[in-house]
Amino acid sequence: MDMCEANAYLRKGDKDELYFEMVDKVIPQAEGLLLEDIFGRRKVFNGRILELALVDHRIVLQEDPKAG
Amino acid sequence: MDMCEANAYLRKGDKDELYFEMVDKVIPQAEGLLLEDIFGRRKVFNGRILELALVDHRIVLQEDPKAG
Repeated sequence: MDMCEANAYLRKGDKDELYFEMVDKVIPQAEGLLLEDIFGRRKVFNGRILELALVDHRIVLQEDPKAG
Repeated sequence: MDMCEANAYLRKGDKDELYFEMVDKVIPQAEGLLLEDIFGRRKVFNGRILELALVDHRIVLQEDPKAG
């Protein structure tokens, strides 16, 4: 099966930490980024997209500095 | 070959117009979204991401209302 989901990583300094696997949808909303995986599970992420690299199945995110 | 590039569409009203095919990378920058296709060709888009639907190979963009 040719599934083109991606993994979402959180960039922290010079490291990328895995945040959410097998992401299908990403929808920017007022509250943050709504991420939905291929099973329909959702997370809302308080931050922004730094980079998409789809051939590598990577979404790189950065937390909003106001958060945490 | 399992290539997970996506096509980028521009949402105009209730229609999505094809903007750029076989996109690999999307990098938000000060000047707009830098899009790069799987051949390394680049476009800078003055607007934002409305939605990613990776399993459907779709990136939906919206033009900045201040533009054109």
